[in-house]
Amino acid sequence: MRVGGKVGGQPRTIGALAEVDSPMTELKNDRFLRALLRQPVDVTPVWMMRQAGRYLPEYRATRTRAGDFMALCKNAELACEVTLQPLERYPLDAAILFSDILTIPDAMGLGLYFEAGEGPRFRKTVRTEADIAALPVPDAARDLDYVMAAVKTIRAALGGSVPLIGFSGSPWTLATYMVEGGSSRDFHTIKRMIYDTPELAHALLDKIALSVIDYLNAQIRAGAQAVQIFDTWGGVLPGPFYREFSLSYMQKIVAGLIRENEGRRVPVILFTKGGGQWLTDMANAGADALGLDWTTDITRARAEVGDRVALQGNMDPSMLFAGPERIRAEVARILEGFGRGNGHVFNLGHGIDQKVDPANAGVFIDAVHELSGRYHG
Amino acid sequence: MRVGGKVGGQPRTIGALAEVDSPMTELKNDRFLRALLRQPVDVTPVWMMRQAGRYLPEYRATRTRAGDFMALCKNAELACEVTLQPLERYPLDAAILFSDILTIPDAMGLGLYFEAGEGPRFRKTVRTEADIAALPVPDAARDLDYVMAAVKTIRAALGGSVPLIGFSGSPWTLATYMVEGGSSRDFHTIKRMIYDTPELAHALLDKIALSVIDYLNAQIRAGAQAVQIFDTWGGVLPGPFYREFSLSYMQKIVAGLIRENEGRRVPVILFTKGGGQWLTDMANAGADALGLDWTTDITRARAEVGDRVALQGNMDPSMLFAGPERIRAEVARILEGFGRGNGHVFNLGHGIDQKVDPANAGVFIDAVHELSGRYHG
Repeated sequence: MRVGGKVGGQPRTIGALAEVDSPMTELKNDRFLRALLRQPVDVTPVWMMRQAGRYLPEYRATRTRAGDFMALCKNAELACEVTLQPLERYPLDAAILFSDILTIPDAMGLGLYFEAGEGPRFRKTVRTEADIAALPVPDAARDLDYVMAAVKTIRAALGGSVPLIGFSGSPWTLATYMVEGGSSRDFHTIKRMIYDTPELAHALLDKIALSVIDYLNAQIRAGAQAVQIFDTWGGVLPGPFYREFSLSYMQKIVAGLIRENEGRRVPVILFTKGGGQWLTDMANAGADALGLDWTTDITRARAEVGDRVALQGNMDPSMLFAGPERIRAEVARILEGFGRGNGHVFNLGHGIDQKVDPANAGVFIDAVHELSGRYHG
Repeated sequence: MRVGGKVGGQPRTIGALAEVDSPMTELKNDRFLRALLRQPVDVTPVWMMRQAGRYLPEYRATRTRAGDFMALCKNAELACEVTLQPLERYPLDAAILFSDILTIPDAMGLGLYFEAGEGPRFRKTVRTEADIAALPVPDAARDLDYVMAAVKTIRAALGGSVPLIGFSGSPWTLATYMVEGGSSRDFHTIKRMIYDTPELAHALLDKIALSVIDYLNAQIRAGAQAVQIFDTWGGVLPGPFYREFSLSYMQKIVAGLIRENEGRRVPVILFTKGGGQWLTDMANAGADALGLDWTTDITRARAEVGDRVALQGNMDPSMLFAGPERIRAEVARILEGFGRGNGHVFNLGHGIDQKVDPANAGVFIDAVHELSGRYHG
C-alpha cells in the first residue's frame, strides 16, 4: 500500500500518514470533531461526501486494479488507499471510510451485485413475513470483518492526522433497496408495504436497525471517531411516515451507539436527503449534528435547530462545475449564511459528482479554510 | 368523438357533456373554482394531476389510435376525448387540458420528440448567447393553435359540467429541458449556466416567461377557467437560486395573466415539486393557490401561508397502490390535517402513476367527497 506518496495531479503529502496510530495518539487536527460538538475552532472544517471517488484519476486506477467495486470495498489495503487519496491532494479535515451503504444487506445474504449503468441490485428481495423472519442480524465483527479491517488499516495509516468517519445507510434507505431489489424511482413496493402492512415494515426495519447498531459500534471499536447515518431516501416519504419509518429507527440507532471511545465523544451525524422540512424532528433524535442537502437555507436551518445540534453542509455539488471565483463566492455566501459561532462543518449538500475537475474540489476546500477565519475566534 | 358514453371499467355519464357551452353558461359544479378563491363549498373538490393518462385502458386505446403522444396532443378531438375519459369514470370536480408541458419549446423550433423509455428529447439544445438570441417567442394563438383548438373543443364538450384547467410548465422547468436537451438527473448544464453565466440564464428565462404569459392567456381566452403552472424541477435548486431563477419568473407570469374572464376570476395555481421549504415565498407571488407535493405537512403549510392562498394536495400518489380502506384513512388524515374552513382542493401530491388500478382512483375520489362534508358548512 502506498500512502502519502505522489499519486498524480496535485498530490499533497500529509506528514505522518505511515506512522502507526494508537488509541492514545493525539489528533493533530480535531477541527471536525470539535465543530460537530459545537466547540470553538480556528477555521471551519471541511470534507466532501464521496470524496474518495471516481472524479479522482488515482481512484479510477486503484479501482481498475481491484477488479470491481465490491472487491475494492473488501480489500482493506485498497480501501485504505482510496480513502487516503483525497487527503493526499487536499487539506481535508476528515477521512471517511471507503465502503458501500449496502454491506449490511449483502451480509444478510441478499447477494449484492452491480450492473453497469444500473446501480446496485440484489439477487434476493425481502417482501414477505417469511422473507423477513429468515433474515439474519449479521454479527458485524465476524460477517463484516472486511469493513473493520479497512477501518483499522485506515486509522493506522492516518497516524492521527485527521479523524476517520465511519458510516451506515439508514434502516429506511437500506430497506428500500432490499424490498425493491435495487435502486428505485418510485418506491412503490416498499411504500405499499408501509401503507398496507406497516407491521411487516416495522419488523424489517427493527432487524435492520439492530444490525446497523452492531455495525456502527464495531466500526467505532475498530477506530471510527465519528459516524454518519446516510438516509438517502427518507425524503421520498410524507412527513408522518418519515417520522415513523425512517427517523424513529435512526433515533433508536443513536440511542444504541457507543458515544465515548478513546477518551473522546464519538459524534453522530444524521443526513436525510430531502429532509429540510423536518429539521426540528431530526434535531430531537439525539444526534450531535445534522447534514443538510443543498436545497436547505442554512440560516433558516440554524435558526430552527438552535443550539441542539451542529450543522453540516451544504453547497450544491453542481457548483463544482462553475468557475473558481464562482465557487469561492458560493462558499462565502454559505459561511455568511451560517454566521459567526460554533457548530458548522462545511460539506457539499450531496456526494461530489464523478465528472468534477479535481482542481475545482481543491478551490472549494481551500476557500472554506481561507474565508472562514473571520467567523471564528 | 365519443363523450359521456360507456368506456369500460366503472363508467359514469356526466349529464350534459355534449351540450354546446357558451361564455354565459352557468357552471353546474364550481366547487373547484370556489375553493381556489377560498370561498365556501359543500364538500372538498378533488382532481388528480395526470388524471387523463396511461392508468386508464380507454386512454391507452385512444393513444394507440392516435399513433404517438404528440399526435394525440395535436388532435383536438382526440385530446378532448382523453381529457373527458376520467370524468366519465369519476365525479371529478375539474377537467385538465390534455397536453404536454413542452409544447412551448417545440413551438420555438427545438424539435420535441419522444424515445421509448427515455422521456422527452429535443433535436436542438439552447446553450449559448446566440442560441438564446435566435429563439422566437411563439405567438400562441397561431403557433400553438392546436392547443387552443383542444381547449375550445373540451369546453364545448364539458357543457358547463365542471371547470377546465389550462396549464404550462414553469420557465425554469422548460429551461431545464431546453438546455439539457431532455430529461436530466443532475441538471449540470443548466446549473452551470445559472452559476457561471446568470445573465444568459436570465435572458433565456425572460423569453420563456413572455412565451408562457402569451400561451396561458391564449388558453384563458379559448376557455380555460383556471391555470396551473407546473414547476416540476424548481426543487432541485438551493433556496436563493429557486427564488431568482424559478419563482421570480412565475411571479412575472402571474402578474401578466388575464385574471378575469367570462365574468369570473381565473385562479392561478403554482406547483413546485420539492417546494415545501419555500411556501412563504411562493405565497407572496400573487397566485391564488399553491400545489403541495406529498412530502409537505398540510397542517404546517396552512399555518405558514395563512389566508393568503388556497392549498391544493397532497396525498402520496403511491398510496393508490394500497387497499381501499387504507386509501380512505389517508384521505381522512389529510382532510383533518387541513381542518375546517375554506381553501382546500384535494389532489395527489404528484401525477397518478400509470400502474395504478383505476378502481383505486375511484376509491380516492369518492372518499374525498364522502369524508369532507364535516369540514364545511
